[in-house]
Amino acid sequence: MKGLFHDGATIQLRTDLPTPVPAPGEVVLDVQTVGVCDTDLQLAKGYMGFRGVLGHEFVGRTKSGHRVAAEINNACHACPTCLAGHPGHCPSRSVLGILNHDGAMAEQVCVPERNLHLIPDQVDDRAAVFIEPLAAAFRIPEQIEIHSGLRFAVLGDGKLGLLCTWVARLAGACVSLIGKHPEKLALAGEHVDTRHLNESASLAKSFDVVVDCTGSNSGLETALGLVKPCGTIVLKTTVAGQYNVNLAGIVIDEVRVIGSRCGPFPRAIKALANREINVKPLIGHEFSLDEAERAFRAAGERGAKKVLIHVVPPES
Amino acid sequence: MKGLFHDGATIQLRTDLPTPVPAPGEVVLDVQTVGVCDTDLQLAKGYMGFRGVLGHEFVGRTKSGHRVAAEINNACHACPTCLAGHPGHCPSRSVLGILNHDGAMAEQVCVPERNLHLIPDQVDDRAAVFIEPLAAAFRIPEQIEIHSGLRFAVLGDGKLGLLCTWVARLAGACVSLIGKHPEKLALAGEHVDTRHLNESASLAKSFDVVVDCTGSNSGLETALGLVKPCGTIVLKTTVAGQYNVNLAGIVIDEVRVIGSRCGPFPRAIKALANREINVKPLIGHEFSLDEAERAFRAAGERGAKKVLIHVVPPES
Repeated sequence: MKGLFHDGATIQLRTDLPTPVPAPGEVVLDVQTVGVCDTDLQLAKGYMGFRGVLGHEFVGRTKSGHRVAAEINNACHACPTCLAGHPGHCPSRSVLGILNHDGAMAEQVCVPERNLHLIPDQVDDRAAVFIEPLAAAFRIPEQIEIHSGLRFAVLGDGKLGLLCTWVARLAGACVSLIGKHPEKLALAGEHVDTRHLNESASLAKSFDVVVDCTGSNSGLETALGLVKPCGTIVLKTTVAGQYNVNLAGIVIDEVRVIGSRCGPFPRAIKALANREINVKPLIGHEFSLDEAERAFRAAGERGAKKVLIHVVPPES
Repeated sequence: MKGLFHDGATIQLRTDLPTPVPAPGEVVLDVQTVGVCDTDLQLAKGYMGFRGVLGHEFVGRTKSGHRVAAEINNACHACPTCLAGHPGHCPSRSVLGILNHDGAMAEQVCVPERNLHLIPDQVDDRAAVFIEPLAAAFRIPEQIEIHSGLRFAVLGDGKLGLLCTWVARLAGACVSLIGKHPEKLALAGEHVDTRHLNESASLAKSFDVVVDCTGSNSGLETALGLVKPCGTIVLKTTVAGQYNVNLAGIVIDEVRVIGSRCGPFPRAIKALANREINVKPLIGHEFSLDEAERAFRAAGERGAKKVLIHVVPPES
């Protein structure tokens, strides 16, 4: 089988990968299109010590021809954590293309059948690649109450930052997107207040909620400067390595800091199907699987939009 | 007036302090007894850059003879933060003995009249000194729901750690107190599981809530190891200076970190009056105001219990 393989040192397109064999409860999918995520770039740098086929944002097709997306946490559904309603945190879980399980940058991928979600016809493959990251953005309204009148800031104008911005707008918040890239801030759309990061000082302690999507270990300290007393910071991006940060503000201002990871696929699918959110402006270069190494490099370029790898040529 | 004064370099008992003049809305109190808090020790080391009379845990007497405790945040009650219901976070507040306002380690102190709480006869002066720190412990059930079945850990067996332990027990949680001092762990009382810090590894990811009362910048990382996925860490102590900490666990495990500071005086007074909590075992050495410098040194000794300074000799 053909696939993009991370051997711990380099990322290489290989044609000699074994055809994946489904574990109990798993099905084999033919991968249609897969996106390159910033987490993939982190994994390539050694994050999580991952070895195997990368890729977790994808559209697959079942043997019976159904187009599907798959949640990425493969839980045991039997341990206390799973039974407490947190299968995404199952201590013995594997995570598609991230932890102990091959991912979807290949011709085929195995996933637990219970993780599948049908993709409606209104959502084409290019949009469907965003189901996983958009679900992650929809995790935020599951964790905190968002309402009109809430002053909401998203820190970081990358793809996840824009998705979080749109989700917060949809939930009725008054949203400011704070970033460093005018061309990305321009994608925020109507009714979003866009600010350059160098305006942060004038925005001190003015937001009820600040979502850190910077992917940088300076994001938390910036967020602590922006949030109101008794406000909330949502940490959306994991940063490998140590933080050196002054956390006294968390106590003095009684700030809540909430880690936020994977979210509800059904809500993301509905938002795409109903055109509540248009992810198409986030798409950058598109490649075939044969060009996957180039695709990976393109995704790592500064300011890159979402890079897609079409394993099967798209219909349009 | 006589009082313990911090000039920025040294802590000195002075007899030439001006008699305090009440600002609008303030009353003058005759100080009866005042406690030495770990925050006072931090202030002595330069925290907050405070200059003036120290002391914020105290019992006073009004001109009309009423025994009172006083909340420590002196807010404007007019700004957006105050009007949003957070006077404790008023950006122009002063804080008794901590920020821009002389404290209570003196013969007299001025405090806003609206900050006063009557101390019932059942609560003697020694116990009443704990109203402020006990209120801080009662801040926790205001911020998070505590119920039976919740596995609750308090990290740090100092005075605040013990108060938080008792408050969590009172709220029905199943509490483990984790510390380094057998003689302090022994104060936890019945129905509290006490553990030595070096058992932490065997307690990994086993608590729904972990309260960090260590006063150390290693506390957060220890707490991150102890808390379950989707659990809550309450940061109770401020640490001056930088943290060097790996925060990826907050995101991966979707942990909530909540800063927690001052709490409800009425609840603390009720708990002392009703004997729901007995703070007497926490009291260590007692001194007169003339011995205040010695008292301050005694409070700084390793493992010291709460040091009291009696400005007026206690009745018993």
